[in-house]
Amino acid sequence: MNITENTHILIVGLGLLGGSYARALTRAGLKVDAIAHKQEDVDFAKAEGFLNEGAAFPDPELIGRADIVVFALYPHVFRTWIEQHQQLLKPGALLTDVTGVKRCIVYDLQEMLRPDVEYIPAHPMAGREVLGVKNSDDRIFRVANYIVVPTEKNTPEAIEICKELGRLMGFARVSQLTPEAHDEMIAFVSQLTHCIAISLMTCTDSDHLGSYTGDSFRDLTRIARINEELWTELFLDNIDALIHQMDLFAAEFGRLRWMLASRDVDGIKDMMRKSTERRIALDEGR
Amino acid sequence: MNITENTHILIVGLGLLGGSYARALTRAGLKVDAIAHKQEDVDFAKAEGFLNEGAAFPDPELIGRADIVVFALYPHVFRTWIEQHQQLLKPGALLTDVTGVKRCIVYDLQEMLRPDVEYIPAHPMAGREVLGVKNSDDRIFRVANYIVVPTEKNTPEAIEICKELGRLMGFARVSQLTPEAHDEMIAFVSQLTHCIAISLMTCTDSDHLGSYTGDSFRDLTRIARINEELWTELFLDNIDALIHQMDLFAAEFGRLRWMLASRDVDGIKDMMRKSTERRIALDEGR
Repeated sequence: MNITENTHILIVGLGLLGGSYARALTRAGLKVDAIAHKQEDVDFAKAEGFLNEGAAFPDPELIGRADIVVFALYPHVFRTWIEQHQQLLKPGALLTDVTGVKRCIVYDLQEMLRPDVEYIPAHPMAGREVLGVKNSDDRIFRVANYIVVPTEKNTPEAIEICKELGRLMGFARVSQLTPEAHDEMIAFVSQLTHCIAISLMTCTDSDHLGSYTGDSFRDLTRIARINEELWTELFLDNIDALIHQMDLFAAEFGRLRWMLASRDVDGIKDMMRKSTERRIALDEGR
Repeated sequence: MNITENTHILIVGLGLLGGSYARALTRAGLKVDAIAHKQEDVDFAKAEGFLNEGAAFPDPELIGRADIVVFALYPHVFRTWIEQHQQLLKPGALLTDVTGVKRCIVYDLQEMLRPDVEYIPAHPMAGREVLGVKNSDDRIFRVANYIVVPTEKNTPEAIEICKELGRLMGFARVSQLTPEAHDEMIAFVSQLTHCIAISLMTCTDSDHLGSYTGDSFRDLTRIARINEELWTELFLDNIDALIHQMDLFAAEFGRLRWMLASRDVDGIKDMMRKSTERRIALDEGR
């Protein structure tokens, strides 16, 4: 299968990410249908011109004609959808997703899936602090990573088509990781940072914060505005990797506290120099 | 004393902040002199048009004619300067500073100061991740807080002049705190956040971070690029308040870890909702 203007794409779940996918793929010249939770989301997307057809129920016609189906759902909803509706999929269809955790879902799903369709997992590392299709915006992809997360069951063709989707949507970088490497990475760069932001935002009863907070506090707590339903599920679906990263961070933070309390000036400065070198390397893309 | 075009301002310490003060006050129409560490910094500032006169030594003429002296030095250098050179100050001169910690320095300095000059402490909560007069930029003040931190020894007149300086330089907000309240606040919103950023940057040996880090990791570690000489001194000069805030944060982070490990879904969601409400309040300036 090649992606052409005749390829039918179906987005299942027309929220912030599903909507942003629909915008990007429509902009790329493809026909994009969607199964949404509410009819008003379909109406909005059609009125805005980034949706071909849509339904607020599992419409057999839309599902049955889709060559590529993108699932933009909560992990447990994704699983239930496959259980209940996979018989409607077109033979040869390629399924992919946006789920932010992988081990907990990809092996099970590939196991329960019909043999004549293929699920190639992906994770677009993009988001906003606001929800819903009305806040969708495919410009968020331009600075973001798109990661294809295949298992041994995936074909080279599916991996390539999935990467092509990421490139078509304008992601800054398209890369590939195993489910295990993906989940470890995401526990560190995304889940741990959210845990830190939440804890910082709730650890003190501080009134009038706005009068004094500088840029640094605002930077560290931007992601403390969080969708508790989604993130609780994502955290618990990756709990071993997340706890491991939280413990590594807590140990390092505790080491700094100990060096400060014991006035270990050399140790503190060493840590700051290491931190500075690494942040400069990050800025320079090394 | 009123601040007029005839007021002589002297900046002692022509680095990032001293240079930014010189730019802002020159732009406001005042005559700004400086005592710098290096002659080349004086030459640069004069060539750029934001310095009247300068010297790379404690020039008695510049010091003796200054109506307002701003100290933009490391805390221990500030103290030594006063011990060694305060006899050169003009009678009636008003001294202020940019020091990021207050209790450790303001009481001692006011105690040792000549009775015919007044030191009114201030803290401009602005900075950059780069150093030196060549990186100075008074636009950083436009979104920043300027905090006047008087003790009981300060006169209402000095407090008012100090606030006027902040307004002249274009700070977004000018406010007033006691040294104790200032140091507690700064331990939380600035020092704790830097400790978190440093620990996050150094807790894992992660190669190729740049390939996968999203916005959240970049946001949380921007301030991990840090001047280890200055910040080690600032941390240790405020160690009791900083340790207290580090412990509050570590306890809250530990509570989240415990709730995750025990799958306390209600507890996790409660914490995320509290975090979200507070961050929205911060965004809305409540």
